[in-house]
Amino acid sequence: MSKGRLEAFSDGVIAIIITIMVLELTIPHEAGLDALRPLIPKFLSYVLSFIYIGIYWNNHHHLLQAVRQINGSILWANMNLLFWLSLIPFTTGWMGENHFAAWPVALYGTVLLLTGFAYVILTRMLIIYQGADSTLAIAVGRDFKGKVSLVLYAVAIPLSFVNSWFAELLYVLVAAMWFIPDRRIEKALAG
Amino acid sequence: MSKGRLEAFSDGVIAIIITIMVLELTIPHEAGLDALRPLIPKFLSYVLSFIYIGIYWNNHHHLLQAVRQINGSILWANMNLLFWLSLIPFTTGWMGENHFAAWPVALYGTVLLLTGFAYVILTRMLIIYQGADSTLAIAVGRDFKGKVSLVLYAVAIPLSFVNSWFAELLYVLVAAMWFIPDRRIEKALAG
Amino acid sequence: MSKGRLEAFSDGVIAIIITIMVLELTIPHEAGLDALRPLIPKFLSYVLSFIYIGIYWNNHHHLLQAVRQINGSILWANMNLLFWLSLIPFTTGWMGENHFAAWPVALYGTVLLLTGFAYVILTRMLIIYQGADSTLAIAVGRDFKGKVSLVLYAVAIPLSFVNSWFAELLYVLVAAMWFIPDRRIEKALAG
Amino acid sequence: MSKGRLEAFSDGVIAIIITIMVLELTIPHEAGLDALRPLIPKFLSYVLSFIYIGIYWNNHHHLLQAVRQINGSILWANMNLLFWLSLIPFTTGWMGENHFAAWPVALYGTVLLLTGFAYVILTRMLIIYQGADSTLAIAVGRDFKGKVSLVLYAVAIPLSFVNSWFAELLYVLVAAMWFIPDRRIEKALAG
Repeated sequence: MSKGRLEAFSDGVIAIIITIMVLELTIPHEAGLDALRPLIPKFLSYVLSFIYIGIYWNNHHHLLQAVRQINGSILWANMNLLFWLSLIPFTTGWMGENHFAAWPVALYGTVLLLTGFAYVILTRMLIIYQGADSTLAIAVGRDFKGKVSLVLYAVAIPLSFVNSWFAELLYVLVAAMWFIPDRRIEKALAG
Repeated sequence: MSKGRLEAFSDGVIAIIITIMVLELTIPHEAGLDALRPLIPKFLSYVLSFIYIGIYWNNHHHLLQAVRQINGSILWANMNLLFWLSLIPFTTGWMGENHFAAWPVALYGTVLLLTGFAYVILTRMLIIYQGADSTLAIAVGRDFKGKVSLVLYAVAIPLSFVNSWFAELLYVLVAAMWFIPDRRIEKALAG
Repeated sequence: MSKGRLEAFSDGVIAIIITIMVLELTIPHEAGLDALRPLIPKFLSYVLSFIYIGIYWNNHHHLLQAVRQINGSILWANMNLLFWLSLIPFTTGWMGENHFAAWPVALYGTVLLLTGFAYVILTRMLIIYQGADSTLAIAVGRDFKGKVSLVLYAVAIPLSFVNSWFAELLYVLVAAMWFIPDRRIEKALAG
Repeated sequence: MSKGRLEAFSDGVIAIIITIMVLELTIPHEAGLDALRPLIPKFLSYVLSFIYIGIYWNNHHHLLQAVRQINGSILWANMNLLFWLSLIPFTTGWMGENHFAAWPVALYGTVLLLTGFAYVILTRMLIIYQGADSTLAIAVGRDFKGKVSLVLYAVAIPLSFVNSWFAELLYVLVAAMWFIPDRRIEKALAG
């Protein structure tokens, strides 16, 4: 089974997810600068989630580049990833709407954690199918960054109830860590 | 006529359908966990429909893999399938909004039944065009799973008025049955 | 300049146009069958526009199949077509919302007429670029169906103010006339 | 790293951005022609932004045609461009909703300016990666049109507070200047 349509479908879904988030920035009826002020938390949430979804798209792109063939389980592991990604516009909107209150920030992290798990599952499925000595398996290696991300999300979730800005800081940290595209695979493919 | 753009267009439409459903999860103005409670039925409907549309995308992917050429009738049979799929966000939303009441659950099943019929029609059109001794015709065979699904939907619709949870159970059952991608075609292509 | 991205972009825009129309079917808060009754005119408008946009996608698909290279003018002629197509969800919604009243039906026809003109312009641009003796030029020929459609729209617009159902009848007639994909190009390519 | 998925993803995002803007044209509950009058400024804003996004798509198309390989920085420079483009539906809606008042018109120009910068950054990244003697570098040259556009936006923003129609005039001027697709690259590729 070729990977072409899986990539095309994932691109479509991710493109829509990243774009519909902007619909949460409801257009004010007033023309003054003051009318934009209540949108600031929504805008900040949007920026963070745009970067996160951009990271997932980038990594997904890299991940599938090292792959030739896929099977049914991989299709569903990918669908699972898209499902959790599709909840990000909701958690982004709830977080922005409620000015980074504890519960919305915790839920935001929970969805990030589950999206991260879904990505790990997809990676594992791909490695199983490609073999433990494949380019992909070597490139992913022990997946240090992936594991650290999951730990940081897991720390951030309870932290939201102490101070939701600490949790946000951790989300920003994870994003910064991944902002650099996955050079491991690029290197392995080149080497 | 090549199948490339048919696949691309279908991927686009299905990607949008699966994603706009999430817009039904309206963002609560309150920050507490209680604010999420009314969304639970909508969320459950979303999960079920996400899986259904995922199944249709997977099967559509498999179906067209066994095909090389298409014609005008196939284009329209595919458009018919996309039309019924496009109604799923509406029936999903109505079902979630009204906590799985009888009429919404019956309409949900009706649209699933008509989507199922549209898929059968598309399959038949493809087989007619490919020939009765084609890989596709052999792979689809007597299409036992397809027929059982239609029967189960047809049973679920009146059952909604007895107890809508029985109907839901049947929808979940059909989804579970199809969750495994269509190995018949994979096997036939490999063999 | 290759046509690949033009097709991909057009597929994306048309896929979104055909799908967002369904968002006009607002989900009723009540669970009874009565709650669906006010949606009937919106649903009928949706069906008509779904078929129209399906026809445009089919014909666009056929048109570009007979083409290898494109230029900047063709890109903009295509963008012009997408612009008028993008107004169809609005006119569809207005027509359905107001139960096929005169002005909405006339506007619906006006947008169809301008979309039709945009399609004619795109076809002419492609023929100029391909040459008057190209497969495309021969296939399109005198474009009888295209011209009749424009005349029927032009008749339907004033007719909306006499009886909007007569206008609707003409819209259905044009759709029926185009429902059969453009066999002229298929034949010319095959012969 | 191949450019295929970058193009596909960008096409998807741009297609959605150009299409969701039309959702701002809220459907009137009345059937008369008067009901359309309040939509005129929204419609004009929509037309302007449709042309702008069309221009970006066209130029993006041309830009990437002259490119074979991409890297991680280019992926992010592209994501940055898509981010600013994704804000255009919001600024378009705000400008139309408030009948071209000073602040919305200034913000519209600010987002155009930042989108323009993002495009310049993407172009620079591509030239760095392709080399200063590449077809692309020669085609882009001193990028006179790009620089003039940025200057005109920068002039238009403060001008919005003097008379917002002067600012609009500049936006229309820049659009007109770019309406002609980037023949520099076409010529360089052909020559």
